Amino acid sequence: MGSSRIVEMMQPLQPDDLLTQSHVVLDFIVDYYKNIENYPVQSQVEPGYLRKRIPDSAPYSSEPIEAILQDISNDIIPGLTHWQSPNFFAYFQANASNPGFIGEMLCTGFNVVGFSWIASPAATELESILMDWMGKMLKLPSAFLFSGNEGGGGVLHGSTCEAAVCTMAAARDIALNKIGWDNISKLVVYASDQTHSTFQKVSKIVGIKPSNFRLLPTSTATGFALSPDVVHMAMKDDVASGLVPMYLCATVGTTGCCAVDPIEGVGLVAKEYGVWLHVDAAYAGSACICPEFRHYLDGVELANSVSFNPHKWLLTNMDCCCLWVKSPNSLQDSLSNNAEYLSNNASETKGVIDYKDWQVALSRRFRAMKLWVVIRRFGVAGLRYHVRSGIMMAEHFEGLVGADPRFEVVVPRSFSLVCFRLKPKVEADGNELNRKLLEAINSTGRAFLIHTLIGGIYVLRLAIGGTLTELRHINATWKLIQDKADLVEAS
Amino acid sequence: MGSSRIVEMMQPLQPDDLLTQSHVVLDFIVDYYKNIENYPVQSQVEPGYLRKRIPDSAPYSSEPIEAILQDISNDIIPGLTHWQSPNFFAYFQANASNPGFIGEMLCTGFNVVGFSWIASPAATELESILMDWMGKMLKLPSAFLFSGNEGGGGVLHGSTCEAAVCTMAAARDIALNKIGWDNISKLVVYASDQTHSTFQKVSKIVGIKPSNFRLLPTSTATGFALSPDVVHMAMKDDVASGLVPMYLCATVGTTGCCAVDPIEGVGLVAKEYGVWLHVDAAYAGSACICPEFRHYLDGVELANSVSFNPHKWLLTNMDCCCLWVKSPNSLQDSLSNNAEYLSNNASETKGVIDYKDWQVALSRRFRAMKLWVVIRRFGVAGLRYHVRSGIMMAEHFEGLVGADPRFEVVVPRSFSLVCFRLKPKVEADGNELNRKLLEAINSTGRAFLIHTLIGGIYVLRLAIGGTLTELRHINATWKLIQDKADLVEAS
Repeated sequence: MGSSRIVEMMQPLQPDDLLTQSHVVLDFIVDYYKNIENYPVQSQVEPGYLRKRIPDSAPYSSEPIEAILQDISNDIIPGLTHWQSPNFFAYFQANASNPGFIGEMLCTGFNVVGFSWIASPAATELESILMDWMGKMLKLPSAFLFSGNEGGGGVLHGSTCEAAVCTMAAARDIALNKIGWDNISKLVVYASDQTHSTFQKVSKIVGIKPSNFRLLPTSTATGFALSPDVVHMAMKDDVASGLVPMYLCATVGTTGCCAVDPIEGVGLVAKEYGVWLHVDAAYAGSACICPEFRHYLDGVELANSVSFNPHKWLLTNMDCCCLWVKSPNSLQDSLSNNAEYLSNNASETKGVIDYKDWQVALSRRFRAMKLWVVIRRFGVAGLRYHVRSGIMMAEHFEGLVGADPRFEVVVPRSFSLVCFRLKPKVEADGNELNRKLLEAINSTGRAFLIHTLIGGIYVLRLAIGGTLTELRHINATWKLIQDKADLVEAS
Repeated sequence: MGSSRIVEMMQPLQPDDLLTQSHVVLDFIVDYYKNIENYPVQSQVEPGYLRKRIPDSAPYSSEPIEAILQDISNDIIPGLTHWQSPNFFAYFQANASNPGFIGEMLCTGFNVVGFSWIASPAATELESILMDWMGKMLKLPSAFLFSGNEGGGGVLHGSTCEAAVCTMAAARDIALNKIGWDNISKLVVYASDQTHSTFQKVSKIVGIKPSNFRLLPTSTATGFALSPDVVHMAMKDDVASGLVPMYLCATVGTTGCCAVDPIEGVGLVAKEYGVWLHVDAAYAGSACICPEFRHYLDGVELANSVSFNPHKWLLTNMDCCCLWVKSPNSLQDSLSNNAEYLSNNASETKGVIDYKDWQVALSRRFRAMKLWVVIRRFGVAGLRYHVRSGIMMAEHFEGLVGADPRFEVVVPRSFSLVCFRLKPKVEADGNELNRKLLEAINSTGRAFLIHTLIGGIYVLRLAIGGTLTELRHINATWKLIQDKADLVEAS
């Protein structure tokens, strides 16, 4: 390739070219959404399929966008599990939306890196304002809001895991300031056996001895929620053993079955033991913007930190996790990142926020732009409508399951997740029967659900709340489940 | 608002609406790029400016996109520091490009969450193939490539910090498996006084005692690179004190002055002490895709892990960090995240990659899509052209500085960073003189540079390589610097 041709091609950020290429790609994406119901929800490819289709090294010369889109159609789309399909009911949803998409375009277009205030004041200030907006939508106590002027505030992270790393590191350092770093092996982290496994991972990441992570037992008696008594006993025992309770995660809407830990009850125990209480409302926090569901956050005034993910159920494309803390100072003590090349007059006044000291990485995307567009385009009314429609569809599905005597709802429905199973004739066969049922459903490609174990029972999880999901998809999926149950029971 | 109006408005992912809204936003972004040279590069707003302009809580009802764009024009753009301005020379660049933008659109459009293979096989497989593409572009040893079949491979992270957390946690756990978790306070991490401050932050995050982080001294004698002898002495001393050397970071292109640590020299020391060697080539790794610069990675076969950021200099919009490890098993041992709801047949075969076990978070964006579009649209030739043009402009600027006897280049230029200063008449006045010069330059809004301290000397850093930067911008900035030097010297 002659250098003149490279020069001609190399207008890497030429505005008119951006417009032309983007229009082609937009048409492609719009077609994808128009056809999304035609694709198998869960990809049906075999491991290793793509290495057979793609060159094993990078092209030397430029390739046209049309060739790339053709390859996406032929080789990538068959390998996608379509999270935006209206028939995706696995894990929890990852809502895309038009406002989320254009918000992300603006974030990507500006491509500013607002790690400190000075590196893009608008990015920092918009984020701090939005964290107050969102905090007010959740009716969080003023101690979590910048506008509360009590020292608290919020930040946008990429994931709950990042929020857990930051808060757990802060809690660890507060404890170590009292007992000394050489005693790090005495620190103990508490969660329930329903808490997201990410907290166990994070506990190890921040240097907590793995045997000091307590998976406290839950049971049907509490709807798989933490019991304050169990937390109390565990902390008491650890203290008696010379260990130091440090961090407790309470969950509002666990991944397995949407259990809600009693924040107030466990919060009082945490307070008694001087333990950092984090409230993980990753999925169900979205519901708490509706007055009728806000009570699930009762007791949150006892927490040191709260997080939830608009990128799950609140129509915000990946990624976006809101974290509020009462004492951002403690985050900064653990996470500040100082170097001469980061110093500047604004930071030295201490009158500005440098979000680099509130998160894991130095660099950061302008996620606040996306969240701002989402909230303004939908309004609080629109966001509530979306959450409520998911919950109404889940109620409807719960009714369908309840009306068919072959099935049972295994734990009472919370929010928009229904955990159910095909009742076995002999209990010992139940798990295998439902495993077969799940495979039979997913292999059709017409819906995608996953399972979990609740108290040892294999259940199917139908997580509702995808952006495109309507009542007709719920009804069709239920029909599919019933049909497959016929087959599985007959086999 | 009646519920019928909400329903009418709520078509949150309606394809034709997506097209309409996106076209409006695209036109806005294209206008932004067309006007970008007219904005002050560094925002001139005062702290707190935005709270005076934006409501203090979220709107109840939907707002039109036009109102949002108007607010972005009036209230956000003045508060941005324009990283895509051709006159942005601060920190290191964060390249945006048309292919990066459309790649991000595709990532956002699909919005799949490929944490395990089954959750979107194409996302996982494309990423593993691309990591081999990129590894071959850097001529990494086969031990780092999947295709090498030696157990190694790569992953896309969001930041160098994430790569550091994951590799340091892995190194820590390898060490603790030998000496036991109760001895975590004995582990020592090594870096130079030029190493990015993120490594010190990460060392604390993963539970290394802060006093066990060694900032090894560098000096003019080695061009501010690590000396293997200094590393050797430090490790020897620590071992003699009963401590356990664990992790060493060698940098190719430090942030302060682009020093290059001798990987082979320090790597042999690391090997002798059984220490994990990480090579951080965050910025300068991009240059190593050119044969004439590849020698800076010589010795990389001694490393356990290598990372670099295409989101800096390789035309890839935020965020994208490549990490290769020789032993992904060690990452998985430290970072695996298992729960019943994540279990699936494919994962149980161990024949697929589940990237959730290679990173901090569970969720992840489809970054491979973006990087694929970037590499194919530019080709290796185009990417090399971009890197070389930045370096040529830096050579040119270095020549301009050298030709003006009032100035000096303080450390020899490496890659596309020039560290220079106005020579003081009395050395003791040098730092204050150059601080004033920097303020005078930045306050014009016509260019944005930052400073650093090198061996106690306050220097101005001109980091070249922005996507839109051309020779004319370099010349104009030099003229601006000369003019401001006149003023500062006269004052």
